[in-house]
Amino acid sequence: MPRLNSYHLSPDLWPADAAPRVLLAGPEARHLLGVLRAKPGDILRLFDGQGRWGLFRLVAVSGKDKAELVAQSLELEPRPASGLVLALGWNKSSRRDWLLEKAVELDALGLLFWQAERSQGEPPASAKGSWREKCVQAAKQCGSAWLPDLGVVAGGVEGLVRVAAKPDGWYDGCYMLDEGAPVDALPDPASLAAGRNLVVIGPEGGLERREAGRLAQAGFKALSLGPRPLRWETAALYCLGLAHFAARTGRNPGSTCA
Amino acid sequence: MPRLNSYHLSPDLWPADAAPRVLLAGPEARHLLGVLRAKPGDILRLFDGQGRWGLFRLVAVSGKDKAELVAQSLELEPRPASGLVLALGWNKSSRRDWLLEKAVELDALGLLFWQAERSQGEPPASAKGSWREKCVQAAKQCGSAWLPDLGVVAGGVEGLVRVAAKPDGWYDGCYMLDEGAPVDALPDPASLAAGRNLVVIGPEGGLERREAGRLAQAGFKALSLGPRPLRWETAALYCLGLAHFAARTGRNPGSTCA
Repeated sequence: MPRLNSYHLSPDLWPADAAPRVLLAGPEARHLLGVLRAKPGDILRLFDGQGRWGLFRLVAVSGKDKAELVAQSLELEPRPASGLVLALGWNKSSRRDWLLEKAVELDALGLLFWQAERSQGEPPASAKGSWREKCVQAAKQCGSAWLPDLGVVAGGVEGLVRVAAKPDGWYDGCYMLDEGAPVDALPDPASLAAGRNLVVIGPEGGLERREAGRLAQAGFKALSLGPRPLRWETAALYCLGLAHFAARTGRNPGSTCA
Repeated sequence: MPRLNSYHLSPDLWPADAAPRVLLAGPEARHLLGVLRAKPGDILRLFDGQGRWGLFRLVAVSGKDKAELVAQSLELEPRPASGLVLALGWNKSSRRDWLLEKAVELDALGLLFWQAERSQGEPPASAKGSWREKCVQAAKQCGSAWLPDLGVVAGGVEGLVRVAAKPDGWYDGCYMLDEGAPVDALPDPASLAAGRNLVVIGPEGGLERREAGRLAQAGFKALSLGPRPLRWETAALYCLGLAHFAARTGRNPGSTCA
């Protein structure tokens, strides 16, 4: 069977088991009705980005952007117990969209953006709707039922230290990529894949010494990805790939934040 | 010391040890003289993409795009004995440029493009100059002295089988990413990093069963990156990252093409 087309339904609109009828509206419905020319009787997949998904039958169409659907099956994919949250130094980067997409494909738990001393430009006060939309599009493509948490951390490294500390015990490990680390201080993929881990990545140009020192003082372990300076998004995807891989090999040695 | 700016000098223009004087011309010289406003006496780094690099002193300027340089030191970085050659199913992809850049950052030995049954569009007859230029820019950024070999493989999977077979023994392992492989048939990073390995990746949509069957018959091992369909460039970078990582951990169990 070819893969069913997926559509995103906001979590607050998700149907109760007892009354599994929903109205899909707006751009998702326009795509369904206008581009795919779906007809009553067609089956499609809806997901909410919070683990819920199901197969739905289109039962009625109203105008160009309202589709009434009845659930045929409702599923819940448990929240992943392990994965990476990347805290990325803000960049004026055309590659941010691309990284949002890859975070979904590779099961990142979250992407946080923070303003580093070498950041170019300033992040917005909070995650933008367009970032979430990019993640939704990626999840439709790869079939993930979960969207990464997106956020902006204020306060530079002090903000990161607060993120690492609270809620207490949420993170199993806290790391930073730092060009000051020994080049053989490579990440241990199994540790990255064991529990929830926070990985701080600087902006293009890396962390300032002061920033790395403050994070080290707060217990972040310094990691290297080798002698060559990798670009921001390369380093981020590299870490996601290692954790994704290790999560599938079954090694799970455990790791705790220093 | 901040990193020196790097400029690419074509291998055929590389100076002999006995007469270490070169003329840098064209866009690279225009950038040096026009953007960086280099002056006689300044030191810069030249590399040829074939392992040779050196520090040079600018001794004379002629017009806007001719710079005469004298070598201060000439180095040779040996050709990497191991690494990946990725054979990528052709896509009409805006992400090709991006992948060329990542291949340099992560030390790919080569990128080949081939026309798969599900390819959209047709690759050119041979590697385009603009691809190489993209690699040069990436090497300037990350300081690599080697550029990956770029090529186009004609003849679909039969072409890939010929690439794998000749020159005899060049490849230590031959693999394909195949959604038909068991989801736990993950690559062994240490094997990817041991010697030269060819990894075939289909276009968006993957390999046709006939293509996967022909490659399996020729000894390519089928690999999976897990249950989720990853995008073309995600899969490619994932493999490059695993090999790059394993090459730095020192594990080297060896692997031969079946």
